[in-house]
Amino acid sequence: MNYDAMFQSALDGLHADGSYRYFADLERRAGNFPKAFHHGLGRDVTVWCSNDYLGMGQHPEVLKAMHKALDETGAGAGGTRNISGTNHYHVELEKELASLHGKESALLFNSGYLSNWVTLGTIAGRLRNCVVLSDELNHASMIEGIRHSRAEKQIFRHNDVEDLERRLKELPADVPKIIAFESVYSMDGDIAPIEAFCDLADKYGAMTYLDEVHAVGMYGDHGAGVAEKLGLSHRLTVIEGTLGKGYGVVGGYIAASAALCDFVRSFGSGFIFSTALPPMIAAGALASVRYLRSSSAEREGQQRAVAYLRQALDKAGLPHLMNSSHIVPVMVGEAELCRSLSDELLNRFGNYIQPINFPTVPRGTERLRITATPLHTNEMIDELVEALATLWQERQLKTFKSVAA
Amino acid sequence: MNYDAMFQSALDGLHADGSYRYFADLERRAGNFPKAFHHGLGRDVTVWCSNDYLGMGQHPEVLKAMHKALDETGAGAGGTRNISGTNHYHVELEKELASLHGKESALLFNSGYLSNWVTLGTIAGRLRNCVVLSDELNHASMIEGIRHSRAEKQIFRHNDVEDLERRLKELPADVPKIIAFESVYSMDGDIAPIEAFCDLADKYGAMTYLDEVHAVGMYGDHGAGVAEKLGLSHRLTVIEGTLGKGYGVVGGYIAASAALCDFVRSFGSGFIFSTALPPMIAAGALASVRYLRSSSAEREGQQRAVAYLRQALDKAGLPHLMNSSHIVPVMVGEAELCRSLSDELLNRFGNYIQPINFPTVPRGTERLRITATPLHTNEMIDELVEALATLWQERQLKTFKSVAA
Repeated sequence: MNYDAMFQSALDGLHADGSYRYFADLERRAGNFPKAFHHGLGRDVTVWCSNDYLGMGQHPEVLKAMHKALDETGAGAGGTRNISGTNHYHVELEKELASLHGKESALLFNSGYLSNWVTLGTIAGRLRNCVVLSDELNHASMIEGIRHSRAEKQIFRHNDVEDLERRLKELPADVPKIIAFESVYSMDGDIAPIEAFCDLADKYGAMTYLDEVHAVGMYGDHGAGVAEKLGLSHRLTVIEGTLGKGYGVVGGYIAASAALCDFVRSFGSGFIFSTALPPMIAAGALASVRYLRSSSAEREGQQRAVAYLRQALDKAGLPHLMNSSHIVPVMVGEAELCRSLSDELLNRFGNYIQPINFPTVPRGTERLRITATPLHTNEMIDELVEALATLWQERQLKTFKSVAA
Repeated sequence: MNYDAMFQSALDGLHADGSYRYFADLERRAGNFPKAFHHGLGRDVTVWCSNDYLGMGQHPEVLKAMHKALDETGAGAGGTRNISGTNHYHVELEKELASLHGKESALLFNSGYLSNWVTLGTIAGRLRNCVVLSDELNHASMIEGIRHSRAEKQIFRHNDVEDLERRLKELPADVPKIIAFESVYSMDGDIAPIEAFCDLADKYGAMTYLDEVHAVGMYGDHGAGVAEKLGLSHRLTVIEGTLGKGYGVVGGYIAASAALCDFVRSFGSGFIFSTALPPMIAAGALASVRYLRSSSAEREGQQRAVAYLRQALDKAGLPHLMNSSHIVPVMVGEAELCRSLSDELLNRFGNYIQPINFPTVPRGTERLRITATPLHTNEMIDELVEALATLWQERQLKTFKSVAA
């Protein structure tokens, strides 16, 4: 049996429809973000698609904390959290995250993917007859977690309060229910009706599970996310976040009641059986979370850059989805075209935006997803938009005033 | 609906049967391993249950590489591998790991758990009619990956060549098959009949998937694991390893054919949708892998310490499982007793060995699992065994000459 031929044939399919992924071989340069050295090109490029949304990955306080912890504690944790792998920085970071979100407890994971997958998989899988009501645009990690739980799943229309209520109404009162959704949706940048979902949860006795990975660090006076901004943190059962985007390091977490966190800690296979994050990673994340609880300059800088970018795109008539977040998707709608625009943007203009193709977004909605950070200057933005406008003109692509989300 | 009460009731069950897990709040101290500061006790203890098997977590070459990369590249990767998160250190590390195992390619994951879960889940889930033959003592991450794939699973008796062949014989020739097993089993420390399994794989046209997480860094002339030691690397379809145990950092990987790695890279949800490991983590792992390819002193030091420990346990008549690996399980057989021995060992003697209870091991086989490293001196070992002997005597526990695995 020729297994490699089977694998290759599946890969050929990706090549054929233009959705095969080529990774850019970059070298981030601390202090020089959003510039990075591109090993393929052999020169510096401007990165426009990083989820290091606030540039915290190069922040001196974060790096200092990591150097210090590296000297103190060494490279790794040396074990799972249970078997010698818990270090004081993990404990401190979990306390900080609980306090950030106004919850009793928090629990760390090696990635945001794991935090969604393990938490939903464990809760929905272990509460008898649990039903998960899941937004149709939820992230893969939530979908896989729910799938893993084997609980009943109902997919409600994206951000649709009425559809969600219609479904909740039909479920028996004594059945455990979880409403799972995101605050900021990664690819469209739109924001969920969090308050209305919390009202429904109260009315029908459901838990709420809110993924804030594209919001923590960036929204609310202390960076606790959209729920904080709207004064709703206390109404959510679980707030899930990441340390790898706004906070610039790596790792995921949940913040919730002490009983819920202890339950996931005690029964979640993907938590129990994973080597803990290195203590110095926890130290860096701790420094980043603490810093962004008190500094708003980075959030304001990001908003400034995003507003300036939108204005520039509008002036040039380039089609981007409007939304109330920091994510600016420039719509292309075709996998091969999206890749080719991205390639030319890189090779000719030195601007790097990875094409976003299926399965990350539905086919036909391929896009260039731009994330402007406080470190992108107006000059960089002007240069990018000019390059995009040139490509749009040369290829005679459609221009618009602006596209509604 | 009182969800917290549901969670609490499940936790009460763990308290009742003694399997509730208390995490030790440690502070690793680079340069002082295997000593660590215990925050609960307020003093230094000797750690005997770390998977930092060779002490590479404090190795100067590893720390130097991480400090350097932290200065160069910053804290995090800033994105998934596809979306700006691939950095040159990832590329270099994947090349190094492929070369270490004599394979065409390698693929990095955020943890060993993820590498097993994603790889088995993706391959078994996407090859039509695939059947996975899984050793009954396989790690949770493999079990969950296979479960996730929804492929047919057959569990064969632990390390049992005959049972495996009986099952292979009954499967149709044209059905894809994966034999999934470990080299060194974490909790018993016994080693699989790798060559015999490879022979069966050839005979019946199956792939072989070998988890070497408790072996890489420690076995073979270059630390590539038991397969290297036995000259069998080329006969395995996939070798899976970790960077968080013998190599002292964090992360997991597979090494296999270019087509297989590309397939998992392109279709594995848990790979695609995870923020990449920080570049400086890859840099530290790279330094560790390279170092252990050429230095055998750490492997020899570990073997010396393990042999001395076994000898000392035998002299004291303390019951430990014999095996041909570095893992020394001292058998207790009862959750509450195991915890209580561990507590007293810690509080009275300053020696930390986490009790290993269900679900990590079957009920009735609870144990103190000891991992002696090259940095555990004969004096430390004498002290530990003396403490254990005292506890065994005081509590009138059974002593033996030695227990066969």
